[in-house]
Amino acid sequence: MSRIVMKFGGTSVADVDRIRNAARRVADEVKAGHQVAVVVSAMSGATNQLVAWVNQIAPLHDPREYDTVVASGEQVTCGLMSLALQQLGVKARSWLGWQIPLVTDGAHGKARIERIDTAGLIAGMDAGEVAVVAGFQGVGPGNRVSTLGRGGSDTSAVALAAALKADVCDIYTDVDGVYTCDPRIVTKARKLDKITYEEMLEMASLGAKVLQTRSVELAMNHRVRVRVLSSFENLPGTLVVDEDEIVEKQIVSGIAYSRDEAKITLLHVPDRPGIAASIFGPLAESSINVDMIVQNVSEDGKTTDLTFTVGKADLQRALAALEGVKDKINYARLVPDPGVVKVSVIGVGMRSHAGVALTMFKCLAEKGINIEVISTSEIKISVLIDEQYLELALRALHSAYGLDAS
Amino acid sequence: MSRIVMKFGGTSVADVDRIRNAARRVADEVKAGHQVAVVVSAMSGATNQLVAWVNQIAPLHDPREYDTVVASGEQVTCGLMSLALQQLGVKARSWLGWQIPLVTDGAHGKARIERIDTAGLIAGMDAGEVAVVAGFQGVGPGNRVSTLGRGGSDTSAVALAAALKADVCDIYTDVDGVYTCDPRIVTKARKLDKITYEEMLEMASLGAKVLQTRSVELAMNHRVRVRVLSSFENLPGTLVVDEDEIVEKQIVSGIAYSRDEAKITLLHVPDRPGIAASIFGPLAESSINVDMIVQNVSEDGKTTDLTFTVGKADLQRALAALEGVKDKINYARLVPDPGVVKVSVIGVGMRSHAGVALTMFKCLAEKGINIEVISTSEIKISVLIDEQYLELALRALHSAYGLDAS
Repeated sequence: MSRIVMKFGGTSVADVDRIRNAARRVADEVKAGHQVAVVVSAMSGATNQLVAWVNQIAPLHDPREYDTVVASGEQVTCGLMSLALQQLGVKARSWLGWQIPLVTDGAHGKARIERIDTAGLIAGMDAGEVAVVAGFQGVGPGNRVSTLGRGGSDTSAVALAAALKADVCDIYTDVDGVYTCDPRIVTKARKLDKITYEEMLEMASLGAKVLQTRSVELAMNHRVRVRVLSSFENLPGTLVVDEDEIVEKQIVSGIAYSRDEAKITLLHVPDRPGIAASIFGPLAESSINVDMIVQNVSEDGKTTDLTFTVGKADLQRALAALEGVKDKINYARLVPDPGVVKVSVIGVGMRSHAGVALTMFKCLAEKGINIEVISTSEIKISVLIDEQYLELALRALHSAYGLDAS
Repeated sequence: MSRIVMKFGGTSVADVDRIRNAARRVADEVKAGHQVAVVVSAMSGATNQLVAWVNQIAPLHDPREYDTVVASGEQVTCGLMSLALQQLGVKARSWLGWQIPLVTDGAHGKARIERIDTAGLIAGMDAGEVAVVAGFQGVGPGNRVSTLGRGGSDTSAVALAAALKADVCDIYTDVDGVYTCDPRIVTKARKLDKITYEEMLEMASLGAKVLQTRSVELAMNHRVRVRVLSSFENLPGTLVVDEDEIVEKQIVSGIAYSRDEAKITLLHVPDRPGIAASIFGPLAESSINVDMIVQNVSEDGKTTDLTFTVGKADLQRALAALEGVKDKINYARLVPDPGVVKVSVIGVGMRSHAGVALTMFKCLAEKGINIEVISTSEIKISVLIDEQYLELALRALHSAYGLDAS
């Protein structure tokens, strides 16, 4: 007998029929003899509606009341899921965050889980009852409802799996696993049977929106085996595991991309110590995340050019912040470019293999694609390119690294 | 400074604009120097949607899960109302049933309030904060969410007013008070400035759906002054109070009616002791409520006719139950009649005035309306008539008792 956590996202519980369908998946696991805890999101669209009401009433809202309102969506689905299970003859009960309790730090709207009291859940499961847990929500100081931030139900599921020492945390979603690349662009993309936490983390943070980044971090820290699979088809999905569990490591496991990039170049910045701080200080104060940074070698020893990227939504605020300190930094000109995308090749195998970057650069050069910025980590190489080449670059790289489906 | 409870029904918080409007009413009371607790229903339609989902999934549902699902509607509005108040510069916070706690007996779907812990609410109100309470919900044994039954927010409001020793419990709704008769039928109906608990109780249970019956009982038991008023217009409304507070008592305060009546007559029932029990026993076993009962005087000393009414929805089940015991009761024939209505004149003044019934009988006779069944209580006379005469009877009685607006 295993103990498993099954998480169903918003599209998997979007209506009564889909809730019934998800309940059948749970019933199958129960019949197979497993102890099951289920984590549910709100019906897709429900949370958006709740957030819209909050914003209509109070654009700058009290986050405690925001949480009270938006947490109601998961309350509905966890009750309905319990009923659907009972209807299939499976014993089940709903658990709201405060009933467990799943205790958070009370940072409303983006709370962190401090503790999950598993005693009640385990007692129920030991008595043959499925524990149906409302995702995304917990209870914070002063008995207030707190939520974990958008997509937080993945985090709820992984944290619950860790606390329950579950054998696996199955994330049911509307895709059937993690692919080597976005199959809407690269038709030859293949589903991966396994992927490491580190790789998944890079994929997640780069916009392959299968799993919330935070949930992958949590899974990695607690070594929770996570499986991503479709709630609509009976397919094996993708297992996210520790590197040790993957015998045959691919050098490159996948190619990710992000359209949410904007490039800013400062021309002729005085090349002196402390200049980087004077540029990035004002951006940090405005809570603008800076991603790729490149500083060219100074030609004349006096000035240099500095390029970096920010999220597209932050571009105007970043420009305003920098124009405000133009006299202090003393740059010549500010050149914004929102027409860029980031493409990354990812793979734990590149730690022990040379030439991975070279393959990328050669491949892009052959297609006549100019690389504007490069950044690398242990298991990832990212380049910034003109957005018009995105699809071409992804398909060419997918072939170049031997990832195409045969 | 007074302490007041303000309750807003579903139509008064039906959308963002109406929530803002209700919040302005609350802000006015706060500015007038009052301590305020607000009780909110779910947005109109929200509860019906939630109930529909539950019924689609599980027609015979676990009432604990039903409660978990349907209680979410009030959670949404109490969060939104708090935000709307804050937006007006009024300090406010939401209180869910389990946060107060408002403790119930755990009879899910129709729970009774056992206790309201007012310490947290009062501390907040003393600190100048409006307590925005989710109506309809409480917490029962095992920390499960329980609801008070449809329309339960009225009961929440009155119970809260009693617990907080509030000076008044204002029920904001989509009508502007309690009328002498249904103004959609009797155009000369007048709004009552005051009405006694006992009268309101008769009005409520007879289908003048302004206040839930249970909330009026509760108000009467705890002597809570209740005011019914419109959330859309600034009008004084109707005060529901103790008889002592009404100096000039009307003999008849209002005329109520109910269309939800069906008549059943058993012809030629043996006239012997125990016969009534043998008829009404099977109906009670089928949970069918019997209302008006008339047994004619036996003509031959051997058989009699017996007539009674049940709710229209129960008619077929009642007939089936009686047909099942035909041999045992030994009646000649069963005559069902769903085409009847009940009309009642109500007034505490009739305790001390003779001739009130006579006025009714004369008035109906003058219009050629036959009375099929009569039943009376201390402050009410009800008659059953053919449904085609309903409007005529109401208008004639309204004039006969001098209730017409001048």
